[in-house]
Formats: sequence, C-alpha cells, structure tokens
Amino acid sequence: MRKALIAAFLLLAATVGAHAYDVKEIGSYFIGGHIQTLSGMPEETVYFYPGAPPTAYNPNGDVHTGQMYVHFVRLAQPRGKVPVILVHGGGLSGTGWESTPDGRPGWQQFFLAAGFDVIVPDQVERGRSNWSRYPQIFTSAPLFRTAQEAWTLFRIGTTYETDPAKRVSWTGGQFPVANYDDFVASFNARWTTTDAIAQAAFDQMVDRECPCVLIAHSAGSGFAIRAALRAPDKIRALVGLEPSAAPNPTTIDIAKLKSIPTLFVWGDHLGDYPDWQKIVVNPYKFQDGMTAQGAKMDVVHLPERGITGNTHMMMLDKNSDQVAGVVRDWLVQQGLAQ
Amino acid sequence: MRKALIAAFLLLAATVGAHAYDVKEIGSYFIGGHIQTLSGMPEETVYFYPGAPPTAYNPNGDVHTGQMYVHFVRLAQPRGKVPVILVHGGGLSGTGWESTPDGRPGWQQFFLAAGFDVIVPDQVERGRSNWSRYPQIFTSAPLFRTAQEAWTLFRIGTTYETDPAKRVSWTGGQFPVANYDDFVASFNARWTTTDAIAQAAFDQMVDRECPCVLIAHSAGSGFAIRAALRAPDKIRALVGLEPSAAPNPTTIDIAKLKSIPTLFVWGDHLGDYPDWQKIVVNPYKFQDGMTAQGAKMDVVHLPERGITGNTHMMMLDKNSDQVAGVVRDWLVQQGLAQ
Repeated sequence: MRKALIAAFLLLAATVGAHAYDVKEIGSYFIGGHIQTLSGMPEETVYFYPGAPPTAYNPNGDVHTGQMYVHFVRLAQPRGKVPVILVHGGGLSGTGWESTPDGRPGWQQFFLAAGFDVIVPDQVERGRSNWSRYPQIFTSAPLFRTAQEAWTLFRIGTTYETDPAKRVSWTGGQFPVANYDDFVASFNARWTTTDAIAQAAFDQMVDRECPCVLIAHSAGSGFAIRAALRAPDKIRALVGLEPSAAPNPTTIDIAKLKSIPTLFVWGDHLGDYPDWQKIVVNPYKFQDGMTAQGAKMDVVHLPERGITGNTHMMMLDKNSDQVAGVVRDWLVQQGLAQ
Repeated sequence: MRKALIAAFLLLAATVGAHAYDVKEIGSYFIGGHIQTLSGMPEETVYFYPGAPPTAYNPNGDVHTGQMYVHFVRLAQPRGKVPVILVHGGGLSGTGWESTPDGRPGWQQFFLAAGFDVIVPDQVERGRSNWSRYPQIFTSAPLFRTAQEAWTLFRIGTTYETDPAKRVSWTGGQFPVANYDDFVASFNARWTTTDAIAQAAFDQMVDRECPCVLIAHSAGSGFAIRAALRAPDKIRALVGLEPSAAPNPTTIDIAKLKSIPTLFVWGDHLGDYPDWQKIVVNPYKFQDGMTAQGAKMDVVHLPERGITGNTHMMMLDKNSDQVAGVVRDWLVQQGLAQ
C-alpha cells in the first residue's frame, strides 16, 4: 500500500511538474463601444467569391463600434496577488505578447509561468477588436506602418532593404532579424482619431479586471497612464517599456500617481537615433516628476545592467525572457507575488 | 509518514483536479502571405492625435499581406490523438470559439478539457490576421454585416430592432439574446476577393499542424473542404457545423475525401427561412455524394435528437456545451481520443 501510494504520488507530482501552469479558464470578451445605426448608403450587388451568383447587399443598419477585445488566461492557483495586463504599442495588437517572431514563448507565457493571471487586450480598432467604417464612423483614413519605418523607429538597425540579405542591423543587436518579416506580418492599420473611444474601452477593462499591474509598451503607455490617473487606487504597479507616450508631468495631475510603484525600462542605442532623443524628452520629465514628488519611481536602462542590444521591441528580442525577468523581479520586490 | 503521504497525495490530487487542463504552451504565429512593395502614393502630413505636432508620413514601402494568425494551446498530456482546429465562419474571427457572448467558456475550452490540443486561426484579413490596403492590395472594398442581417441569417429570430426590447426571437431559441450586441461586437470586415490568398495560408497552416481534426463552421467549411481535397491524408476527421460552403459534389473530386470520417451538424428552424432552403442544397448534395461513395458520412439534425432551438451560431448558443458534446462523442467513436 505504502509503495503504491508513493508511486502514485510521484506519478502525480511528475504530471503536475510537466507543464508550465495549471489553467482554470482561457477566454475573451468585448468591452466598451456601442451600437451605431448607419443609413443613406446605396444598396449594392456583390459577388461573395469569383463566379458567385449576385447577392443584394444593404450596408445600412446597426453595427457595433468602439469595442475592445480582451483575452484572459486565469490560473487555477495564481501566486501573483493581482493580474498582469499586457498593453501593446502603436500599430500593433496583443499578438506580440503571445509568441516571438522566431517562435519562442512570449511574455504572456512568462508571466503565467511566474504565477500571474494574464490579460491581453487589443486596442480599439486593432486586431480582434475590429475596426469601423470610415468616413462613416471613424472620421479619418487609417495609416499603415511600413517595414522600412519600423526597422529604424524600433531601433533594429540602420538600413532596411526589401532583400533581407541587404538589411543592416546592430552588431550584438537582440532582435531576431531572420524573422523580421514575420514581425511585419503583425502590423495593424491604425487611426489617429480614435484615442478617446480607445481610452473609454480601456478604462472599462480596468474597472472590470483591476486591481492589477499594468505593463505597457510604447504608445500603450498613454492609455495606461491615463487609466491610472482616472483610477489610481486600482493600479498596484505601473511598468512602462520604453513608454514613449508618457506625458510631460506639467500637463497632468501627477500627484494622483504618487502611490503607484512605477518602473520604466529602456533598451539600447537610444543615443544613436535623433528621433529617439526627441521621443524620450517627455518620458524622462515624467520620471523626474514622479521622483520629485517622492513616488516609488524606478528606471532601468538595460545597458547599465550589462544587458545590451535591446531594441524598442524588447518583448520580442532574443533575450526577451531576460528582460521579462527584470520586470518580474521588480514586481516581486513590490510584494505583488507570493 | 503514511498519513502525511496520504494527505500530500490528496492535496496534490485536489490541485490537479482544480483546473480544467494542464497547459504546456500557449502562443500564436503568422503563416502565409508575403512582403509587398507599395509605391506612388503621396506623402502626407498627419497628426497622431488631436493637438499633436505635424508628422511626415510616407505610406510607400514594404508591407506584409496575406498572412494568417494562428493561435494554439498545447496540453502537457493531450488525450486527443491529433489537435483540433476550430475554423470560424464568414464575417467573424476566431473569438467565437473562445467564450460565448454571455461569458461562458467556449468550444476552445471544451475541447481542451476533453484532452485535445486546440488551434484557432483567424481567416486572412480578419481579426488578428490584419487586413491590407484597398484598392492597392486587396482589390475591392470590404463589406460589413449589420446586426439586422445576422439576426435572421443566423436564425436567431424573425424581427430585429435597434431597441433590444422589440427584437423577436424564437420561443425556446438557444441564442443568448440578452447579449446579442456583444456578439455583434465580434463582427469583422470581410472582402469578397481574397478567397485564394486565404486558402493558401489555410493550407500552410494544415501542413504545419496536421494530422488533425478540422471543425469548421459555415463559410469556414469551404476552406476546410478545399484543404482536405488538397491533403486528404492529413485530415483524420472533418466536422461541418451548418457547413454552408460545402460544394456540390459534382464540382469537386469527392473521391479524394472517401477515407475521411465526416460529420455535419444542423440546428433548428432551417425550414422557417427560405434563404436557408437554398443554402442547404449543396451541403445536402455533398452529404449524399459522400454516402454514395461509401464514405463514413454522419449527419446530425439536432432537433431529431431532441436538442431544439439551436441557431446557426450553435457554438455560442446557451446549450453550446451540449452541442460540443455531440461532436466530442463522435470524435471518440472515430477513435481519435484516448
């Protein structure tokens, strides 16, 4: 009996140990937005595929706009005290948190394995949040980021060419450049006139999911900081990954953020791009403003820790788990994991 | 010692039992498509948000088009012999497999709990697969389905009004009508000129993920059946949920599908909509064609099993788990689960 029990115990323990995390629920929902009634557009005859019979199509009627897609993975026994919400940056959707372009597990999995429930929204208009007709609902046309622009804006290298062999990246750079085109496949159309509706849905998500940790990348930091200003008691910690949208503190009531432990993380080669010297001005002022009011404000420039070569897309870089570890360790220091 | 061991065993057993499934990896990737170089569009001055400084924007350059987003959850110890791929229908994305509009677990979770690895793609152009500029890349403008059209096309009821109180649904109908607007939030723009590139990416996903089971809803059945015709040896079973795109068997080499166990599932109220009497013509011929050549072809009309009130969106209906159970039991009968 005892031997059998020990054997059963070891088998069960091995089963539990064989996976990264025990999941209670995986799912998603839409939040925010509203039904809008469209009228006045002409009816059309459409062909649903080449050679299909003609079909009458009436574009007028009720559609939903302004909603946000929110994906969640909830653990059976989370060790994190609150969930982590991973907020993507501009022109992207939540896919960059799931896996890296070269097929390694993303930060979603890292923080699940670290014991946190993980929430991944797609900003309004992006990815599974779905976009709305323009100019009937969205008032402007969308912008599409090119591979050229991202190569330098995201500090992957200096020279982009369509031919991958001719692209120049940094020696020691961490981006998995052999899979750069797979990264470009994740780019989303973006609008410049939707910030208000996107913020409204974001705030509703915060009301539903928080207290929480917000980990926000790039332009996503704007949504996260505005959400924190609206409901500071709901945000247990705020992490900005190259938070380009952090505002000049003189334009906000930064005192509201005083009790939120905050960490900003910066990659490499910031000094090699004149555009980045402009981009960091307000975020650096924000850091100083938080520090000046006595807030818990930590800043990590990865190269100063000997972690070199990181791009703007640090959650996709080859050392993405190492960078995630910096954030996880900081969250543990804040007492947010058991 | 023995008491402690028993206590530890029971605690561990309780831990294992507390969650629905042990996950090895959650992630996603993009497959298919290619980089396309755009030129000749004028440069613009854009304002990234109201009040932002003017920014030069050059829309010309390299973009990715034709890619498909594929989400996966792989179990630590799958009991299914092959993964299940859940293929969504027209004007939708993969979100409808994740959760129902009223917040219950979706079929993704049902089949994970049943022991299958589960793959959920978004069709090219939809959801996280991202769409491409038109007319520069996609050659036509998109269509947006209205709440009105879906209410009757999906057989939720007879009369749609913007005011939820005035909508008429079937007595005993299974759709969670109180959350109908949340369902409308999941609707995607669709193009009528992208079937070929969508099929190409779908076929690449099949090459990567299969052998597998394809469970395809509505228009998604077209992609699934064409994939099966191209690579019948990779498809261990084919399930069509109201597979509206199943072709007239005289237009395909149906003999190639003879060895694939196939199940078609139909909901309620098919006879109450003249449009549906047209839609079912080819799928019913397909069923007959499979049976005539001696294939394993099973057809379930849910009302004939006493399961009534199901709409076209049976994976979202209030009895979604019951319908999923019909499919799971059939897969077990085919020897596809241990």
